Amino acid sequence: MERFLGRLISPTLAVVEEDLRHLKVKRVKVGDIVEVLEEASLKPYLCKLVSLEKRRAVFEIVKELTPNIPRAFVRLYQCVPVKVSTFDEIVQRATEVGVSQIVPVISKRSFQKLPVIEEKIARWNRIVRESLKQCGRHHLPQILPPVRLEDVNPEGEYLNLFAFEREENNNLFKVLKFKTPSKGANIIVGPEGGFSKEEAQSLVNRGFLPVSLGNFTLRAETASVAVTFAVYNALATSDK
Amino acid sequence: MERFLGRLISPTLAVVEEDLRHLKVKRVKVGDIVEVLEEASLKPYLCKLVSLEKRRAVFEIVKELTPNIPRAFVRLYQCVPVKVSTFDEIVQRATEVGVSQIVPVISKRSFQKLPVIEEKIARWNRIVRESLKQCGRHHLPQILPPVRLEDVNPEGEYLNLFAFEREENNNLFKVLKFKTPSKGANIIVGPEGGFSKEEAQSLVNRGFLPVSLGNFTLRAETASVAVTFAVYNALATSDK
Repeated sequence: MERFLGRLISPTLAVVEEDLRHLKVKRVKVGDIVEVLEEASLKPYLCKLVSLEKRRAVFEIVKELTPNIPRAFVRLYQCVPVKVSTFDEIVQRATEVGVSQIVPVISKRSFQKLPVIEEKIARWNRIVRESLKQCGRHHLPQILPPVRLEDVNPEGEYLNLFAFEREENNNLFKVLKFKTPSKGANIIVGPEGGFSKEEAQSLVNRGFLPVSLGNFTLRAETASVAVTFAVYNALATSDK
Repeated sequence: MERFLGRLISPTLAVVEEDLRHLKVKRVKVGDIVEVLEEASLKPYLCKLVSLEKRRAVFEIVKELTPNIPRAFVRLYQCVPVKVSTFDEIVQRATEVGVSQIVPVISKRSFQKLPVIEEKIARWNRIVRESLKQCGRHHLPQILPPVRLEDVNPEGEYLNLFAFEREENNNLFKVLKFKTPSKGANIIVGPEGGFSKEEAQSLVNRGFLPVSLGNFTLRAETASVAVTFAVYNALATSDK
């Protein structure tokens, strides 16, 4: 099912304007059934194309659909890689695997320029909205303002973890198997080169649990999607 | 620690030739300590650069290291996406997260041209060798010749799974939590657009278990890394 962002102009009609180019690329024709997400709320509607005009496409609403939203709360604190463009892929993939909030983090080995990161947030929000359509998600993950690693703190009744390459005992999967029920999770993932010993010790002192993601060193973009996927699904299925 | 492929020329000396450009890019200097992997066996040696020549770098072997190899056997049957270049990323990432064998698969909605896939295998093997160095893995995942989905069969004492978007009950994490010990796993991941109903039914009839990767639709390249990561780690830590 193709999905497009649009807006309701009456209880029975929706229009797609900004997403018109995408709709034309997908060769949607009059009579075709697609999903239109109301661009502010992301509420999904099953819609039939009734008129393809120069600047907009008009749809008849067939029915309102049940929104597909995250079933667990995962906040990803992601240290910004020195090659900042890697963060584009990270926000795209983290959206697919169920993240609710993404916080760009500055750490010892991360990209350092706060104003550059702040400027990128609008771009990352656009990537997130594209990713939403592709993965059938009707909920916008938030991208929060950047913070410094020393200001990241754990929360009570949350699973508070950080991926640490030199951790040998706590494999993520052992932790997830024996964890107690949680309200959600805070996950910290390092940049290329990971965390320094001092950074790791400081995170442990603040109450974060170091976890191993296996015996090979993952790229930052692989680690973030892998750990978010695992924690999201473990939490989302824990009481079922 | 930087890693390079090379070969032993005596019990105490190693040379890097093909990887010389990579070594220069990394600005390794005489006296620096790096890891040299013997290019055939991938055995790792801690080495000190003693001479940087025009066509080769000569290293003194400091000591042999313990190889870091997979701790569980995971075979990924990956349907080749229509945009074949996506497979490059899949083999790179699957190597990081511990896959032992990758089998390109032709299914109803996959890329269809067998000779094109066969030609790509040399390229994928090169990508795998680059990925090995980056992730500190001393074991070559095999890329097997392509097969058709109807010829993929489960194995006894293995976990035999396929990722299925329309599966609502068996979340992968529930399956991994209650699984019995296994010799390894066969995982099948679909192309963009997934499996047809008939393909899924046929896989079930042959003994593959459909698993859900959560309530959002993952791209093929996200699904393959996520499911391989989860199954590898669950198997690798299951008896510890």
